[in-house]
Formats: sequence, C-alpha cells, structure tokens
Amino acid sequence: MAIRLGENNYGKQRVRILQVARHPDRHDIKELTLGIRLEGDFETAHTKGDNRKVLPTDTMKNTVYALAKQHAIESPEAFCLRLADHFLARNPQVSRVRIEAAETLWTRLAIEGKTYPHTFTGSNNERRTAALAATRKEKTLHAGIAGLIVLKTTDSAFEDFLKDEYTTLKEDRDRILATAISANWLYRESAIDFDQDWRGVRQSLLEAFAGHNSESLQHTLYAMGEAALKKFPSIREIHLSLPNKHYNLVDLSPFHLENPKEVFLPTDEPHGLIEATVRSD
Amino acid sequence: MAIRLGENNYGKQRVRILQVARHPDRHDIKELTLGIRLEGDFETAHTKGDNRKVLPTDTMKNTVYALAKQHAIESPEAFCLRLADHFLARNPQVSRVRIEAAETLWTRLAIEGKTYPHTFTGSNNERRTAALAATRKEKTLHAGIAGLIVLKTTDSAFEDFLKDEYTTLKEDRDRILATAISANWLYRESAIDFDQDWRGVRQSLLEAFAGHNSESLQHTLYAMGEAALKKFPSIREIHLSLPNKHYNLVDLSPFHLENPKEVFLPTDEPHGLIEATVRSD
Amino acid sequence: MAIRLGENNYGKQRVRILQVARHPDRHDIKELTLGIRLEGDFETAHTKGDNRKVLPTDTMKNTVYALAKQHAIESPEAFCLRLADHFLARNPQVSRVRIEAAETLWTRLAIEGKTYPHTFTGSNNERRTAALAATRKEKTLHAGIAGLIVLKTTDSAFEDFLKDEYTTLKEDRDRILATAISANWLYRESAIDFDQDWRGVRQSLLEAFAGHNSESLQHTLYAMGEAALKKFPSIREIHLSLPNKHYNLVDLSPFHLENPKEVFLPTDEPHGLIEATVRSD
Amino acid sequence: MAIRLGENNYGKQRVRILQVARHPDRHDIKELTLGIRLEGDFETAHTKGDNRKVLPTDTMKNTVYALAKQHAIESPEAFCLRLADHFLARNPQVSRVRIEAAETLWTRLAIEGKTYPHTFTGSNNERRTAALAATRKEKTLHAGIAGLIVLKTTDSAFEDFLKDEYTTLKEDRDRILATAISANWLYRESAIDFDQDWRGVRQSLLEAFAGHNSESLQHTLYAMGEAALKKFPSIREIHLSLPNKHYNLVDLSPFHLENPKEVFLPTDEPHGLIEATVRSD
Repeated sequence: MAIRLGENNYGKQRVRILQVARHPDRHDIKELTLGIRLEGDFETAHTKGDNRKVLPTDTMKNTVYALAKQHAIESPEAFCLRLADHFLARNPQVSRVRIEAAETLWTRLAIEGKTYPHTFTGSNNERRTAALAATRKEKTLHAGIAGLIVLKTTDSAFEDFLKDEYTTLKEDRDRILATAISANWLYRESAIDFDQDWRGVRQSLLEAFAGHNSESLQHTLYAMGEAALKKFPSIREIHLSLPNKHYNLVDLSPFHLENPKEVFLPTDEPHGLIEATVRSD
Repeated sequence: MAIRLGENNYGKQRVRILQVARHPDRHDIKELTLGIRLEGDFETAHTKGDNRKVLPTDTMKNTVYALAKQHAIESPEAFCLRLADHFLARNPQVSRVRIEAAETLWTRLAIEGKTYPHTFTGSNNERRTAALAATRKEKTLHAGIAGLIVLKTTDSAFEDFLKDEYTTLKEDRDRILATAISANWLYRESAIDFDQDWRGVRQSLLEAFAGHNSESLQHTLYAMGEAALKKFPSIREIHLSLPNKHYNLVDLSPFHLENPKEVFLPTDEPHGLIEATVRSD
Repeated sequence: MAIRLGENNYGKQRVRILQVARHPDRHDIKELTLGIRLEGDFETAHTKGDNRKVLPTDTMKNTVYALAKQHAIESPEAFCLRLADHFLARNPQVSRVRIEAAETLWTRLAIEGKTYPHTFTGSNNERRTAALAATRKEKTLHAGIAGLIVLKTTDSAFEDFLKDEYTTLKEDRDRILATAISANWLYRESAIDFDQDWRGVRQSLLEAFAGHNSESLQHTLYAMGEAALKKFPSIREIHLSLPNKHYNLVDLSPFHLENPKEVFLPTDEPHGLIEATVRSD
Repeated sequence: MAIRLGENNYGKQRVRILQVARHPDRHDIKELTLGIRLEGDFETAHTKGDNRKVLPTDTMKNTVYALAKQHAIESPEAFCLRLADHFLARNPQVSRVRIEAAETLWTRLAIEGKTYPHTFTGSNNERRTAALAATRKEKTLHAGIAGLIVLKTTDSAFEDFLKDEYTTLKEDRDRILATAISANWLYRESAIDFDQDWRGVRQSLLEAFAGHNSESLQHTLYAMGEAALKKFPSIREIHLSLPNKHYNLVDLSPFHLENPKEVFLPTDEPHGLIEATVRSD
C-alpha cells in the first residue's frame, strides 16, 4: 500500500482590512475580509517538513496591507486580481492562487437631506463578494452577493407537486416566499466596470424576485438567473443558492379564530434549499 | 440551615411572529421576536411540583398568535402593553409580567423610483426593541435600538489619559471611532406616538454621533444621551451600551511604507465597552 | 430640565489569555476570557471630555498579561480577586471593579490508558465562570457554570397545569427533559478551595438533575439548587437559569405509524426559560 | 444568446431528529441533523413552473421521521444509505441523492463509578459526520469528524520558511500548535463496522497529532492522514482541513518582564488554513 499526497492548498483566512480614502470634501471607506489559498509545489512540506518553499500565511496577511497602501482598493474584484498577480509573479513554486473577498457594505450617513462626509452606518448582513482562481495561464473570476434577505407576501404558489405516502404538505395558491439570496456569477473577461455590473445584477435579481408569478422557488430562481444573464452579456453563468425560509401560517382554529393569511410563524429550521446554475451560451 | 426559594420567574423566549396587513394597494408586514416572563405565586411549583397555578409557556406562545390575530401589532411597545394586560387580567397568581420584543426591520423594496407593494428586503442587523415590566399598579416601559453599527473616520481623539506602568497605548488626536449602538430609553408615560419617538431618538443619536468632536467614547456617549433627552421630553432617562470597536492603524514601517491613516485593521476582540445612563430631571 | 450622568462603567471585554505551566514531566494550561469594568469618578470624562482619570481599556488588557506572568492563574476566582485588588490599589478614582472570567475547559488527552503530557482536547461548550464585584469595603464573589447541556429520557412529567382558552398543550406523564445549565452561586467568603467547590457543586447539580422525579423544570431547578446548598455550606445562594430545550414527540399518525416515545424533534425556538434563586439562611 | 439550466439540486436542510431506544435496563439516544438533496429531471420545474415531478422538501423531512420509526438509526452512515435507497427506489425522476448527517455526540452520565441509565450530557462542539452521494449505479460514502479541537504546547516548530519583503514572522523552534480537526474519509465499500472504524480513525488522528514532531501544520496534517490510512485499509483517502488557531506569545518587554513561553494570546482571526487529501493506492 502506497500512501501519497493528493490535492492540497494552504493560506490565510479572515484577513480584515479597512481602507480610508481621504478626499478634501469627504472620506470614502472600503472594508474587506479576505481569504487567500495557494497551490503548488508543496509536497515536501507535507512529507518531509521542508518549509523552504512555504511562504508563511503571516506574510500573506502582511501583503494585503502593503498592497492596499500602495494601490487604492477599487473593488473586491480588482483587489483579488492584484493580490493573485502579486503571489504568482513572486512565487514560482505556486501554480494556482485562489482569493476570496467579502465586502462589508457601509452606507454614508444622510439625514433629512444632509449628507455626513465622514460618518457611515453599516449594520447590514449583506456582503458583496468576489472569488478568483488564477494560474499563470487563466483566470476564473466570480462576483457575487451573500445574505440579501427578501420576502414577498403574495404572487407565490406551490401546487400540483408530487405526492407519496409521506406527503402531508397542503397545496398553496398564495403563500409567503422568503429567501436569503446567495448569488455568484462568472465573468467572461476581467476588463469590466465591476461596480456597475454588480449593482446592475443585484437590481435584476431583486426585480425578478419581486415581479415574478412564482410557482415554486425553483421557478423564481430560474427567472432571477435568466433576468441577470439577459441584461448582462458580460456574464457567462450565474449560480444561485436560495434557502426557502418558511413562514408557516399559524393554525388558530383551536381558538375559534380564522387566519386569512395574516399571522405567520417565521422558522429557521428545517428549511428548503434550492440551488442551480443558469448559463448563457 | 433553612433553604428557601428566592426571586424567580418563568416564561417563553424566542416566540416569533410575522403579521401581514393586507391593504388593497399594498401589504404591510411586522416581524417580532418576543420573550415573556411571569413572576408571582409559584413557590409550590418549585418546592412541591404542584403545577396548578402554572400557565404553560406553550400557552404564552399561543396567546401571542391569538392576540395578534385579534388586534393589529401597531408597534412593539403597544404589543408588549397588550400582552402584559392580558396575562395580568387573567392570572391572579401573577404579580409581575415582563415582555421583551425585538422587531426585525423590513424595508419595502424600491428600485429607481418604483415601489413594490408586496416585496421587502430585510438583511439588517439592527433591531427596534421594547421592554415592559408591568404589575397591576405600575408599568415601566423602555424602547430601544440594538445593533445599529456606526463608524466615523475623523473628529475622534483619545488623549491625556491616565498612564501607569502597564500603559503602552499612544495618544491619538485623530482616530477612527466605531460602535454598535445599543440604546434603551424609559418613557415617562405610555400614551406616546411610539413610532415617531423611536424614529426621532434614533435620528438624534445618529446626529450626535456624527456631529460630535469626540474626546473619548464616554464623551460621545454622553453627547448622544443628552441630545436625545433634550429633544424628547417624553423620555426620563436613556441607557447606552457602546462597544469600542477598535480599528487599529496597521504598522507598515517594516515594509518602509508610511501609513497616514489609510490602512486599518478591524478587530472584534478584545474591545472596549462604555455604558452609562443619562437622566433628565 | 437638567440633564445629568447616572450610573456608568467602562472597561475591556473579551480579553483572552492562555497560560502554560511548564512542569518537568508535563505542561498544564489554563485559558480564560475576561471582562473588566470600572466604576468611579468619571463624570468629567463624559461631560467635558477630560480623560485624566481614565485608565485606558488597553492598559486593562496589558495588566491581565503582566499579572498572569507574575502570578500563576490558580483559578478563575483567584485571578478575578487579584485583578480587582490591583485596580483598586492603584486607582483612587475607581470605587468599584467588576471582573468576569470564563474558563475554556481543556482536557488532557488520554488514549487507552496512555496520558499525553503536552496535548489537550477542548471541544466543549461548557465554561467555568467567575464574577466578582469589589469595592474597597466588600467583595461579592460568584462562581458558576455555563453551557452544561443535559438530557434525560424519563422521570420527567408536566401535568395538572393551569389551562385557559389558549391552552393546547397535552398533559405528559413521561417526557424528555433537556436543558443547558447556567448556574451562579454566591460564596459567603473568599477563603475557599475554589476548584474543589466548583467540581462539587457541578456534581451535585448533575446528580440532582439525573435522580429527580421531575414534575416540571421548576421542580427540578429547585431540587438542583437545594442539593448544592445542602452539600456546600460555603454557598449563600445559587441562581439557576434553565432553558427548557423542547424535544417534541413527532406525530406519525398521518403515516399510520405509532410513536411510543421513540422519535422526537429537537427544537431551538421557541423555548421555555425557568429562572430562580435558591437561598440558604 | 440561449439561456439554459445547468447543474441543479434541491432539498431540505437542518432536519433534526432524536431517536430513543428504550431497553429494559437503559435508554440509548441518537441525535442527528440531516441535509437531503435531490438531482434529476427537474428542468421544467425551473423553466415552466411545472411541479409534477417535485417531491416537496416537506415530504423529505417526513420521510426521515417515518423511516427512523421503522428502523433504528444504527449509525449516521447506515441511515444515510437507507434514506438514499428510499428516495432512489421511489422517484424515477431522481438521478442522484446526496445525504449529509451530523451526529450530536451525547455521553451517558457517570459520576464516581455510577452510571445513569437515562441521563446524558452533551455540551460538545464535536460532530460525527457522514456524507453520501448515491446514484442507481454507485455510492460514494464519506465518514468524518468536525470540530474536534486539539492543542499541544510543545513538539511544534515553524522554521526555514520562505521570506520575502513582506515577511516579519520570526522563526520558532517551539511553539503552540492548535487546530479544530475537520476530517472526511472515503470508504472503499459500504459493508463496514462504521462505529468501530470511526472510533479508530479518530484515535489515529489524535495519536498522530499528539506524537508528531511537527515542522509545520502541513507536516502534521500529512502524518495524521498517513496514520489513519495505514491502520484502516477500508479507507481509500482522507481529506483534512485544519485551521491554524494561532496562540501568539505576548510581548511583555514593555513591562520589563520575560515571557519564557508562559503567557499567550489566543486569536480567532486571521487564521491559517491547511487543507490536503492523503491517498492510499
């Protein structure tokens, strides 16, 4: 029996950074949490404890800060590209770099028409994400959204489904549909206005969710993916992962009360999960 | 040695509800997570296992749904008052009721001026809270905010502080100040436009945070409390609990780079915590 | 309308430390997470931005490390006492110090009778806690347990409870009882073998939970508190906060199957919560 | 531009179950959290809203309970196999089923030699996991461990690593090594004593972690994988994902104190992450 090393990678996770751009009339901020992984010629590190080709993960962290000082973070996507180029250029032992970035979305404070130039609110679960896998020959760049919670109170049904001996679910012509949108889309190329596309795809997904006459979450997922692909030819494919966050109608009949779709129980578990990739050829 | 029962309470936590108000032109929604606690004559339940005066916590949960059906949830505060009245009126064995409510803040979807009547986004950590303690004689009603994250990139200092042999912190005339506002204010009475006051206090706190020339988080905390009390005579006192979410300037000198307050490290732990009550007499 | 500062405190939270004691034949480790709060003459810090009496929270963190170097951490309780003494002795402006400590419980690895002198496993949610409030005149010291999860499959009932129009819960002579024990007990004095008492109280609580014929979680809570107080005269009172972690019997009748207490649904929300102090006079 | 559906799946997540086996002299319990995903002929559900082939995720949940009633849960692996067989046998439209199970590990209470037949403690983060992907032709079955936290205070070094202009990490001959073991191993076949192998692999991993003279976490990872594969020929490969949970030596020199590896700062972020598959041919 021979034992050998298979696929492997190493790197640094949860590298956090806030960058402040100090303009005369205002400050802009950008907060990212990064994950960095390297693949390459690291077999003897595993099998012999030879660290001579191992760039410390601590150095990866330092590199994030040093590069952020030397170049403004324009977008998560652009910063991922810069970091990957850096590691590939300096490290011949590395064959592939993967960088993941999640942007914490801060909003400039504005109250009654007054905008505050140095103050931001940021209490949002939503993240703008980017994920890059880069070799010296090719780059695969995804942009994405995580944690965008949406709910609609009508125009959603689930009927005519398959029944078997363990089916108790009732058909429902008019139910609540709620999910936390997790979307990742693959760009055809890297020369893109990342900010514009990200905002545009986000808007397409929201419009499709809101405007769709849903027969199921699968049905809505496809409509969302289709809407984004139709509007953005820069995108080759989009992957959507949508939990079905069930809001169950509460049975008030034991109390001799009707419940005409007014009182619901929000639940976290169990939950449905619908995942699909929609492609444009 | 005599052993006896001291202070005690019991109840139901994490009772969740979504209420939909179905208007002809739009739906409104309200989502709350509730905690209910009863105090009273429950000694024999503890000492003898006699449950005859114990209203099941499951019944408390059912009561939330039944009352929500019979009366619209106007505000977290009003719903707390209604629930407490119900339990006190029906349960002579109960001497005190405490109700806590946290509202999940949904926002109606609007894109490029178009408002969607049935779709909402809700990816926010911020919660609107209410907390009521009620006996048959008096009510103590707090409203509040939890998880409102704010950050300012200037107008914040921390200097001239006490030093001892273990002090290494440098004086800083211009630092980042960030916190997650947790505020609870006590109303003088219950006949209040709860929505208007809540929005107003929230705005006062944000304006004070943004506009203050801060010498410390203590200094800003007091300014925030003072601003709210000055504007809202309905409030007797406000308690603020403000974590100091440190954003540390990254030392780039090992890389022969300056860092003129551009690159910061966000940290979660350890963190400062400043708490105070500000009162109006 | 006069506005003034009320109760206030400030300090450092989530100060983490691991201490290694390097004995010739083995290493011992102790991991704590600490919270420190100071009260005192800090009014002008709030009202005028005068920091001259403000010991930085960063210094509090440094103090933890410096004291841990100079004195072994014998127990969470003893280390809280040492820290409070330090801050009170050096800071005349401080009137009260509160220290909270939570110990991460590591277990020395042992496999088939072999004990490893330098390796530990630590995957446990349970924490050993201590909480001290100290002025120059008196000390209030609590020890405690958090997150000790227990479940029994029989000897638990809930019957003969109060019913009203919203009660649907069925009486149950033989149910599952599960909780996460959170206990805090007050010592009469500080000259105690803290390790021995902590282990003893923990054992008393577990034996009482396991051996009790429970008519309700209230009933079991009291039995647990009574058992600890009877065995440990060093304790003046004990506070227990016990969530009722419901395991609901699954209704299999739609599938024409019996369920003689075999298949249960574990749930996190909503949950009951029973809290009481039991005292020894 | 043609738009079409790519890879897709749907199912139910966080399906929780506790099974009680009621023996005359004792009860045994088994708690699982399950995830179920189906792949197959679901294109028209997405593109046309046609649900006729869609087995509701609610039915998947019911199936878990109904099967658990009819057959004891012997192990997470065996229950995954049973569930997959059920869905494949009844649903011709399904081509592939994936089942994931995570077992909450309860321990029977024992105090001073006395074993309690109906009481269990369960405050552990560690999970025993299983993951099955099954078509009508083949099954891929992984068993695993998640959240097994380990720490060693010596016999760990990191030296002679690659340095570049952004490297500040110091070489270290004797550091703390800590991780949370996440392991997944692939069985060659399904006719295995799953409980015996799981316990054996877990023990091999712990022994290798404790006994290894580590030159890096990569080095230790490989030693752990090799140890498991050498002892268990039933395993084809094992994947290990090991966060490097840094315990940093605290610099006490500002306080004129030595720190001979006694006082450390535990940190959660950033952290290293080492991942590799080790194979047996």
